Amino acid sequence: MTNSQTPIYLDHNATTPVHPEVVEAMLPYLREHFGNPSSGHVYGQRAHAAIEHAREQVASLIGAQPDEIVFTSGGTEANNLAIRGIAEFTENRRHIVTSTVEHPATARPCAYLERHGFEVTWLPVDSDGRVRQGEARPFVRGDTLLATIMLAQNETGTLMPIRELSDLAHAKGALVHTDAAQAVGKIPVEVDDLGADLLSIAGHKLYAPKGVGALYVRRGVRLAPLVLGAGHEGGLRPGTENVPYIVGLGAACELAGRDQETESTRQRALRDDLWKRLHTAIPGLRLNGHPTERLPNTLNVSFPGAKGSAVLAAAPEIAASTGSACHEGGESPSGVLLAMGREPEEALEALRLSLGRHTTQREVEEAAAALARAFHRIVRGPRQV
Amino acid sequence: MTNSQTPIYLDHNATTPVHPEVVEAMLPYLREHFGNPSSGHVYGQRAHAAIEHAREQVASLIGAQPDEIVFTSGGTEANNLAIRGIAEFTENRRHIVTSTVEHPATARPCAYLERHGFEVTWLPVDSDGRVRQGEARPFVRGDTLLATIMLAQNETGTLMPIRELSDLAHAKGALVHTDAAQAVGKIPVEVDDLGADLLSIAGHKLYAPKGVGALYVRRGVRLAPLVLGAGHEGGLRPGTENVPYIVGLGAACELAGRDQETESTRQRALRDDLWKRLHTAIPGLRLNGHPTERLPNTLNVSFPGAKGSAVLAAAPEIAASTGSACHEGGESPSGVLLAMGREPEEALEALRLSLGRHTTQREVEEAAAALARAFHRIVRGPRQV
Repeated sequence: MTNSQTPIYLDHNATTPVHPEVVEAMLPYLREHFGNPSSGHVYGQRAHAAIEHAREQVASLIGAQPDEIVFTSGGTEANNLAIRGIAEFTENRRHIVTSTVEHPATARPCAYLERHGFEVTWLPVDSDGRVRQGEARPFVRGDTLLATIMLAQNETGTLMPIRELSDLAHAKGALVHTDAAQAVGKIPVEVDDLGADLLSIAGHKLYAPKGVGALYVRRGVRLAPLVLGAGHEGGLRPGTENVPYIVGLGAACELAGRDQETESTRQRALRDDLWKRLHTAIPGLRLNGHPTERLPNTLNVSFPGAKGSAVLAAAPEIAASTGSACHEGGESPSGVLLAMGREPEEALEALRLSLGRHTTQREVEEAAAALARAFHRIVRGPRQV
Repeated sequence: MTNSQTPIYLDHNATTPVHPEVVEAMLPYLREHFGNPSSGHVYGQRAHAAIEHAREQVASLIGAQPDEIVFTSGGTEANNLAIRGIAEFTENRRHIVTSTVEHPATARPCAYLERHGFEVTWLPVDSDGRVRQGEARPFVRGDTLLATIMLAQNETGTLMPIRELSDLAHAKGALVHTDAAQAVGKIPVEVDDLGADLLSIAGHKLYAPKGVGALYVRRGVRLAPLVLGAGHEGGLRPGTENVPYIVGLGAACELAGRDQETESTRQRALRDDLWKRLHTAIPGLRLNGHPTERLPNTLNVSFPGAKGSAVLAAAPEIAASTGSACHEGGESPSGVLLAMGREPEEALEALRLSLGRHTTQREVEEAAAALARAFHRIVRGPRQV
């Protein structure tokens, strides 16, 4: 994929292709096995069995029990269900702790609760984009209902110290939700190791399709449904189940469990090579995100003296993003980078490169060369080209 | 499909198979065209163009404008978005009118609002399952915010007089929502003819997959989003768009527009033949639903002296349902039939047979024979078989 028709895809944090094995797993459920899982007859039974198998596959990847998995229409819905669902059972706890670098799918539900009688503490992050346990400690209180902090930041790949934050929260009797949309499939994710009571998964970030996700709900945690209707998904998510995509999410989770270690080693090496090449070609290139506590596939850099959008426009060989795909279109600086203390100008110089399963060494070399060429063309000005 | 492994499928109101042309339309978006529609690069642009094309196809089927279509994860979510979304903008109107035979995806959001400061009038239906305009008139008031009545009842197929109810509602300044999940694709549905301000579509009832739907929102109608996050779907439905299924829903709507008239004629003839055969073989068989103002594919009958579930169990050649798939599992009488004035015993005798695009004359004959055999075996008792 190296011509301008199909540029090198370095935008896997925006979305991943569906893995061919996932497509194959899904196809029988788009074709012959079309039953409604709620139907009592054989068509329904077959569909029901398929989603229960997928539930086991998803649970297995994150060290959960199948009955702790609720399928949703994606990561955004999973976050909404977790945060707004838990807020229905407050037991007089009306305080929520989150961070200043959450995805809108977490930040907006928190802001909604803030407008509806909850107090929300928005924890700052350090210059690497991490919430520090020490900074968080004074803000976790006896009336804290929920701490919701993402596991891996979507723009920078920075990993949050969820275990340490969970310990703080649990010591005060609060529950812990983590948006693991960017993490699952890229790093090992175990709900018990993290101390997560609720954890969101987005299918399309791990080679399943867009439009399916899951929420892990620890046994004993009480949630109210967000969408109201019939009794699907233990009453937590009504609506006829998306059988093909649920099957796909299960298959993707099984693949992730099989390949995650190999792939993260491989992608980290490629990513580090990309950084080395760019950094050599572009003196003053700055890394955005934690140098080591970071997703293995993610490289967010700021170009000294050139906007990320301009570099991208000048490098049509590359498909990447200046930030979150969900914020595309505007030319405003990334709020995530601002929260990390970057000046607006420097934030506008950022570019996110996110690698994936199909990224090759050759693509990395071509991408580095194309980006360096584009950068130098811009800073030298058009005359010198 | 006539052996017990794959019984004759007469449960199309529970769910339909995905049409092969719909699968074909979707496959490129499950395979090569995997971009995130929010991404600025060519992968994103291609995905974006695909969902905008689908938006035109959906709009065209119901006589709407593309910008009036919001894609959702299904009919349940569409109903929730309509009812709860409209309730955020009340302008001091805090009264809702609905019926006693709505799907839980409408009834539960209404009940939720009833618990949160709204008054809800649950309109009765007549013995054919229709809300009568005359019955409704006194209940539509100056403070009525919304009338939400389904277009076609899912268990009986009875069609509601939405146009007449819309006229009542609009005369009082109220808005009109109709759950058209069962109607779209089976009968002509035009938002202006119906006078609908909001209308829900469920993909899997019209040969698109489970897990996609749409809400028609008339221009000028203000809604709040149900799920909160980034700005997708005009801010009304955040979350990365389910591109393949949206493409599939578009294709299914185009197919429905092309074939609806022919298919409804064909299925009505088959359905009426099924009724005739059953009625001849089983004296005292009773029709549940309106004799003429009814979906062309739906036949809900009560067997005199035998439970619907028993007849089904004794006719493994048939895949059908005793009522809504969403209520399966229990042995309680259908609330819809009770609302129509049936005695609990008679309601338990009901069986819903719903035909589809692939139903053949031969299947109808075999189904009628199998159901009649099963019925007579039950009422005669096991000794006489």
